[in-house]
Amino acid sequence: MHIGIIGMGLIGGSLAKSLKSRGMARHILGVEANIEHGKQAIGLGLIDEIVPLQTAIETCDLIVLAVPVNAIIEILPEVLDQVTHQTVLDVGSTKSQISLSVEGHPARGRYVACHPMAGTEFSGPQAAVEKLFEGKCNVVCNPEKSDADAVQKVVHLFESIGMYTIYQDAQLHDMHAAYVSHMSHVSSIALALTVLHKEKSEEEIFRLASGGFRSTVRLAKSNPATWIPIFEQNREHLLDVLDEHITVLSKFRSLLIKKDFKTFHQLMEEANSIKNIINTA
Amino acid sequence: MHIGIIGMGLIGGSLAKSLKSRGMARHILGVEANIEHGKQAIGLGLIDEIVPLQTAIETCDLIVLAVPVNAIIEILPEVLDQVTHQTVLDVGSTKSQISLSVEGHPARGRYVACHPMAGTEFSGPQAAVEKLFEGKCNVVCNPEKSDADAVQKVVHLFESIGMYTIYQDAQLHDMHAAYVSHMSHVSSIALALTVLHKEKSEEEIFRLASGGFRSTVRLAKSNPATWIPIFEQNREHLLDVLDEHITVLSKFRSLLIKKDFKTFHQLMEEANSIKNIINTA
Repeated sequence: MHIGIIGMGLIGGSLAKSLKSRGMARHILGVEANIEHGKQAIGLGLIDEIVPLQTAIETCDLIVLAVPVNAIIEILPEVLDQVTHQTVLDVGSTKSQISLSVEGHPARGRYVACHPMAGTEFSGPQAAVEKLFEGKCNVVCNPEKSDADAVQKVVHLFESIGMYTIYQDAQLHDMHAAYVSHMSHVSSIALALTVLHKEKSEEEIFRLASGGFRSTVRLAKSNPATWIPIFEQNREHLLDVLDEHITVLSKFRSLLIKKDFKTFHQLMEEANSIKNIINTA
Repeated sequence: MHIGIIGMGLIGGSLAKSLKSRGMARHILGVEANIEHGKQAIGLGLIDEIVPLQTAIETCDLIVLAVPVNAIIEILPEVLDQVTHQTVLDVGSTKSQISLSVEGHPARGRYVACHPMAGTEFSGPQAAVEKLFEGKCNVVCNPEKSDADAVQKVVHLFESIGMYTIYQDAQLHDMHAAYVSHMSHVSSIALALTVLHKEKSEEEIFRLASGGFRSTVRLAKSNPATWIPIFEQNREHLLDVLDEHITVLSKFRSLLIKKDFKTFHQLMEEANSIKNIINTA
């Protein structure tokens, strides 16, 4: 199978690395606007050559869009304009607006909307990790809108690198993603800013920060070019969960003011139940 | 050196394990009200025997209080009532109220206020980790209030298990700890509750949660019996930083409502600077 990956970032790069190591693709074409990133991707052995988008579309059976979600919306209809038999998938963290951008497109069936739920706080080809996807979940949205052979090919691709597949409606996906992923990023960014605002001494942060602080602010290191378009596209669901989060924190504030530590204790016990759902750190 | 550790939890147990593995203590006495935890601590080889508090005070040169901070305030004055030459230290996450509880005590000099800044979200003797403290910071508060030989003994103890020492005023410690540790716990607990409130399907959380969510909610698994008394004792500093955190999140909310993603981008870039301070996850 000839594979072309558009975007040599964390996800595109990790996908290339995973596919190569599993023997799923001997020759991978990369498309990358950033010349330096393109060179790095070749140097790191993630891909074999950098080509123009046009070449990738013409010569590949499978085309992966791994650029930020705002760029996916721009590129995806153009790519579908040119495909005949090829399969196209994207790996964006939002699905509704991307799906909407090709709703009714004559080649809609060749496109499979995906969200492999894996990542780190790092970006660019040097952030590529071979086993990023292993044991993780790939969400395929609205498979009924895609040709059966395209869905089959995409599911096989992700399962070959150790992912399991679930199927969801794009709107529902975006709601769940806001809860389980996007809100974590907003919370972490806000916590980093909070501490940067309050703690004037960087040295104190450096000296005193232990594992707890590091893990809660980890996502605040993420790339704004990736994440701000996600927040933009998933604005309504994000606002909904952010409102709830502010409500919970305001409740904690009120309990501290009233010195109601008994209720705080009960709420923390309730929060503890997350360990029954997610039992590894 | 004969060492007695009061409290066989994560910190007391890890300290015992670290001291044994470094050959700093051949025989460690443990004091533990929970009979099951006492048995586990012996079974795991953390300590050699469980004794009453009285015995530990009478027979040890060094007594470590590793119980929740509300219990430290109760026990510390009683312990100091009985010491003559012994050194007493605590490992609580707050320092002001604990220090205040023995201010002016005739044996105040024998007590050294400590906060080894290390931990995990787990609790009890089975959570003990041998290398928990390696490379981490131990804060010694107001060493001028302790006898020089006591400070020297305590610093040597923590440095022998790989920690480095910093000295701080108890009030300042509590302020920094609120920023860099306690707020992370509150944020994580709030995020877990938020998602538990919004996401009615535990299965969806389980299936979709990737590393990002796991790391931001990790601290929500922590023991309320340990943490609620910390929030209680550090209530004022915690309220101060919580107010700032709610302000930042409300600002994000307002930017989402106004669709001002340019400003959101700038704020995320600002948050990114945390990676220059904390460069490992």
